[in-house]
Amino acid sequence: MSTRAATIDRLQSAARIERDIETLAGPEFTLSDEAIRRYAYTPAYRNTLDYFTRELEAIRYDVAEDPVGTLVARNRPQGEKVFGIGSHCDSNRNGGKYDGTLGVVTALEVCRLNEELGLGLGLQLVSFLEEEGSGFGQMLLGSRIMAQRVTEDDLRERFRSLDDGRSFWEHAQEAGYEPARWRESLRVLDDLTGWIEMHIEQARVLQDTGNRVGIVTAIAGYVHADVTLHGRGDHAGATPMDFRLDPGLPLAESILELDRLARAAGRNTVGTVGEIEVHPSLINAIPERIRFSLDIRGVEEEAYGGVVRDIGAFVQDAAERRGMTVEVRERQTLAPTVLDTRIVAALEEAARSTGEPFMLMPSGAAHDTMCVADHVPSAMVFVPCRDGISHSPLEDADPADAALAAEIILNAIRALA
Amino acid sequence: MSTRAATIDRLQSAARIERDIETLAGPEFTLSDEAIRRYAYTPAYRNTLDYFTRELEAIRYDVAEDPVGTLVARNRPQGEKVFGIGSHCDSNRNGGKYDGTLGVVTALEVCRLNEELGLGLGLQLVSFLEEEGSGFGQMLLGSRIMAQRVTEDDLRERFRSLDDGRSFWEHAQEAGYEPARWRESLRVLDDLTGWIEMHIEQARVLQDTGNRVGIVTAIAGYVHADVTLHGRGDHAGATPMDFRLDPGLPLAESILELDRLARAAGRNTVGTVGEIEVHPSLINAIPERIRFSLDIRGVEEEAYGGVVRDIGAFVQDAAERRGMTVEVRERQTLAPTVLDTRIVAALEEAARSTGEPFMLMPSGAAHDTMCVADHVPSAMVFVPCRDGISHSPLEDADPADAALAAEIILNAIRALA
Repeated sequence: MSTRAATIDRLQSAARIERDIETLAGPEFTLSDEAIRRYAYTPAYRNTLDYFTRELEAIRYDVAEDPVGTLVARNRPQGEKVFGIGSHCDSNRNGGKYDGTLGVVTALEVCRLNEELGLGLGLQLVSFLEEEGSGFGQMLLGSRIMAQRVTEDDLRERFRSLDDGRSFWEHAQEAGYEPARWRESLRVLDDLTGWIEMHIEQARVLQDTGNRVGIVTAIAGYVHADVTLHGRGDHAGATPMDFRLDPGLPLAESILELDRLARAAGRNTVGTVGEIEVHPSLINAIPERIRFSLDIRGVEEEAYGGVVRDIGAFVQDAAERRGMTVEVRERQTLAPTVLDTRIVAALEEAARSTGEPFMLMPSGAAHDTMCVADHVPSAMVFVPCRDGISHSPLEDADPADAALAAEIILNAIRALA
Repeated sequence: MSTRAATIDRLQSAARIERDIETLAGPEFTLSDEAIRRYAYTPAYRNTLDYFTRELEAIRYDVAEDPVGTLVARNRPQGEKVFGIGSHCDSNRNGGKYDGTLGVVTALEVCRLNEELGLGLGLQLVSFLEEEGSGFGQMLLGSRIMAQRVTEDDLRERFRSLDDGRSFWEHAQEAGYEPARWRESLRVLDDLTGWIEMHIEQARVLQDTGNRVGIVTAIAGYVHADVTLHGRGDHAGATPMDFRLDPGLPLAESILELDRLARAAGRNTVGTVGEIEVHPSLINAIPERIRFSLDIRGVEEEAYGGVVRDIGAFVQDAAERRGMTVEVRERQTLAPTVLDTRIVAALEEAARSTGEPFMLMPSGAAHDTMCVADHVPSAMVFVPCRDGISHSPLEDADPADAALAAEIILNAIRALA
């Protein structure tokens, strides 16, 4: 931790990052004129990997791909310790220029700075295959393969192309990969002493609080569930208030209670009702039943798990108190990921020494780092994106913030070395 | 009022009513095997008018149709005073055997009893064209034409067949009517000293309170409106509770407030949120906007109008308090109809003398009687329908209740004569 912080030419770094981003927004790197659209095994995706390969070889990195197509580049031979940096360079089908790609581009800039400044850090850049699930409908696919969070049956049979229905396996083979060796992907992590992923925030906290950098302390886990309230469908005009079993009332109470519970739980817990489906949905009919979704997240299972339990009991009670019934059905759950305190502290120290405004924060969205963190001490850095807009061609971020993040990541890795 | 109440053979009346209802549920009287489906100018509808014509001619009534096809039958020449009874015999497209038709069948039974018992009442039976709007999407069409609540342009151009898009005018002509003489339809009401429509309740108040008959004191007016709350669509995981503009919260508050306001207003006021539409409707996205419908009704404009005003102010405030905006757009309004106190009192007296349980009640649903009441002192009688189910092939009602209603109507008309 005694190394003096390196100061970089941030204007030069921002210009290079901007050039990379704008290049990768060009027509050969996207399948659509109206958005960035690139995903596994398409020409646009291949061209993107080739671009990173050229840029990394220009600074004498060894560039390879794992058995399914995750790009790995390093400046030390296999077996020597390196620090891992990177993100993903595939996009949402209606995506923007920054989600994922800005993290890989910034990692590339860290590599460049390391060589230019002669810092002598051992680095490994990783660009994960298919984080967004645009090709096979499976999020975090490359990092889940690496972390062995899939089965061979998933890859051979279950995961299928959204375009033509053929298996992931078949597509990987056709693209020249060896999916049968997928278990070897884990070896990419063998020499890593740590891992830092940089990403746009995808929300508006940094923008609205005036911070240029967020240091992520944990990635939220979540519970997704559906609640169905069964009332009684009656005529809205002919049925007096006292004769009703209107599921809209326990719906309303549950929405307000979820808000109250999430705020009371604190510790970055959030709760959202994103879907409401009324049956039969007629202006003059009391609803017969209403289904609504629950999305409850947090970085501390104890906190958000309490909200899950409490809202479950609340809807039960709210329905029964009014003579109705309710079903709660879990759709999906994912445990939270606590990030490495040592790396977080190094990032915090490096951020402080820049004098620029930064904050510690959780990530509400999922990232490849969740899979890396199973095996390697990990952390993440966020930069603002305008108005929190992401997964949209309107996505916007400032290369100057990315250059600042590159400086912070570089100095954190130096301090940890 | 001094006439002694006639006692009828209720079993015989119930049997005749049942026979009429079951006959009219036969294959020549419906366009569907799975429901009663009959509407203006279809063969099923024509056959139904012919059935009533035959039955009424059998008791020597003069049967005619107005210029658009509303059936009118009377036992006195034009110019002599008569009392009007009836309903409609078209159905919802997915309808049951009782809605409307039971009212015409019961009116027919009143005519039969008047002749059989030699009571000598001057009666006019009316079966209105197209109450349900199944043919041309216009509710209360026959009675609105009669009450001159339409324009010639509506009939010539605006009102179009749901089946083939051709105008009402063209269809009426093709069926042998003279729509150009539609203004003469009003003359049907010329000789009426009063009007009573019998109908199934279409809600569960009679069933749940154990009453066999409801005497309707007023028909509710209503306001239909749409409320759109504009929030901000953000990532459900990445956006902390304090950074949200979630329109689900003012939605929830408004649902609960509408319920509170309607109950507080009393006087048969009801308020319903029947439609909720969330955009974009994704489990992991805070809604960008939510539209919901308002159906607010009552028999006293002062009471339900207050709810309309208060909920409008409330949603405005609920949205603004949370930094959001809202639009309220009126879809449709209809004024309430107060029914004739003298006829209501006569029905009440006649009901009391049967010894059977009955109640005074409002009608939350709209009926042809709203249009008749513009011109003639009017009232309505309800009978229970099982579980309040209507507009469904599952619709069910008891012919014995209809026979009881026939007796009450007959005696009320005698008392009023």
